[in-house]
Amino acid sequence: MAERGRAAEAPARSRADYPHFLAIATRWMDNDVYGHVNNVTYYSYFDTVVNEHLIHAGGLDFERDASIGVVVETSCVFRKSLSFPDAIDAGLAVVKVGKTSVAYEIGLFRKGDEALAALGRFVHVWVDRTTQRPVAVPSRIRAALEALRVTRERAP
Amino acid sequence: MAERGRAAEAPARSRADYPHFLAIATRWMDNDVYGHVNNVTYYSYFDTVVNEHLIHAGGLDFERDASIGVVVETSCVFRKSLSFPDAIDAGLAVVKVGKTSVAYEIGLFRKGDEALAALGRFVHVWVDRTTQRPVAVPSRIRAALEALRVTRERAP
Amino acid sequence: MAERGRAAEAPARSRADYPHFLAIATRWMDNDVYGHVNNVTYYSYFDTVVNEHLIHAGGLDFERDASIGVVVETSCVFRKSLSFPDAIDAGLAVVKVGKTSVAYEIGLFRKGDEALAALGRFVHVWVDRTTQRPVAVPSRIRAALEALRVTRERAP
Amino acid sequence: MAERGRAAEAPARSRADYPHFLAIATRWMDNDVYGHVNNVTYYSYFDTVVNEHLIHAGGLDFERDASIGVVVETSCVFRKSLSFPDAIDAGLAVVKVGKTSVAYEIGLFRKGDEALAALGRFVHVWVDRTTQRPVAVPSRIRAALEALRVTRERAP
Repeated sequence: MAERGRAAEAPARSRADYPHFLAIATRWMDNDVYGHVNNVTYYSYFDTVVNEHLIHAGGLDFERDASIGVVVETSCVFRKSLSFPDAIDAGLAVVKVGKTSVAYEIGLFRKGDEALAALGRFVHVWVDRTTQRPVAVPSRIRAALEALRVTRERAP
Repeated sequence: MAERGRAAEAPARSRADYPHFLAIATRWMDNDVYGHVNNVTYYSYFDTVVNEHLIHAGGLDFERDASIGVVVETSCVFRKSLSFPDAIDAGLAVVKVGKTSVAYEIGLFRKGDEALAALGRFVHVWVDRTTQRPVAVPSRIRAALEALRVTRERAP
Repeated sequence: MAERGRAAEAPARSRADYPHFLAIATRWMDNDVYGHVNNVTYYSYFDTVVNEHLIHAGGLDFERDASIGVVVETSCVFRKSLSFPDAIDAGLAVVKVGKTSVAYEIGLFRKGDEALAALGRFVHVWVDRTTQRPVAVPSRIRAALEALRVTRERAP
Repeated sequence: MAERGRAAEAPARSRADYPHFLAIATRWMDNDVYGHVNNVTYYSYFDTVVNEHLIHAGGLDFERDASIGVVVETSCVFRKSLSFPDAIDAGLAVVKVGKTSVAYEIGLFRKGDEALAALGRFVHVWVDRTTQRPVAVPSRIRAALEALRVTRERAP
């Protein structure tokens, strides 16, 4: 099973690999007809933990900031199913910070479980809110990103 | 800007690259605070076009089938923003069919627009509904997948 | 069963009771663990048909307009279940237009089905985008609302 | 402004009116283009607090139970806006328990705020999972509901 093989090759991660965590509560409607959290919803956990950090640590003001982060690429490898009413610990790390972009890695763990449930990649490019042209990552945001900077031998 | 570079390197696609299309209507709440469809929601378009095909062409009965498709991996490269009330044409192709797994590629186009808005990858593994162990893709599903089979020099 | 009785008392509606319709496609993740569209999602159909009309007929520009419609009250009576991949016809009527507010009624019908699936009520108050104080419904919006004005003996 | 008047007439509620609370975390995509939690999403908070109680206190097993609760009616009056990254305290009370149905009232409060943000009504009818015919509320569920039973002079 080639795809399974591919997924199995995804890099291993433990809780210790993430410098920041956010507790995320599942919701009833997160579950789909098969009784587990739908694949789409994982990405909502990803952009919640990312933006929560940008707001609380980086001072992001999504109503007024002159520049905003737009998402150019995301991916997820699903390892273990999650299901409402599970509580989730979402680990966040920053794996690359460029002049105008940043790549995050997110590891989802069921509360009380050491095994990774899902491994995500999420890439922001900063753009001017009006022109949508790339701009440098604002300095306060950059400082918040650097605080979560890790080195990965293998990206997800 | 490395990430932009990476996204820019994603393979080019036109409407002609997809053997099947589904019209998808955006919804008011698809838009986020920045006035465009949120990155998460693109994945809901992906699993809608995939499952619509499995139901209509492959006879998938998500309530009763003995085996189900579970998602093991997805990804998306975002090229052009979409925004409610845009109508979307979601192109679907099957890029790999293994014994127990299938990899789909989805191309999203704004209605009336030739340029790709987003390029997705979506991988299903078939498992027994009860044991969750991998099983062979059911023959009727397999036939529906083969009907959309394409060869890609480069995967997304 | 008192609640069922209450629901049964909800006013009867047919397709002819709605001056405007929007086709809405269900999505895979609209279905919940019980295999039907989750109750929450019906409200997303409501605010989609309302805002689609305001944009196309009333010229609503949600990015720039000085005043916006905020939702102060909604309700829904659920009659028949809907399920992906059903197509839905969402009927829209305006049942009250005040100086600063408007009450809409929405009737959902499964495509090809004459029987009402759900009956919704949705109330907007227009407010200044910055101060959030009530303002008069803008004239172009008002004209679009009046075009869908109906008289109801009984509201939902 | 009649509608505002109507909303203003909704019954007053404080935190003390609810015998059970669940903490709910907002998500980035809960916010809509106007920067606040979209009206639809409030209902997802409602069915999360309801089902969490049914699962934890009433032993609800949504995969295997012979009977399930289907939603026949919901409503919400919106008083104060909520916005990601707000934390929410969702208060739950049971205002009516019939032979086959139950009516819940939900009060949403922003964490640290005494003023009601939204007031919801949510009505379940218990039905046989297969036949969809009404059945008596199961005894263990009923006990969990009675534990949250309150008397209200005015329903929302």
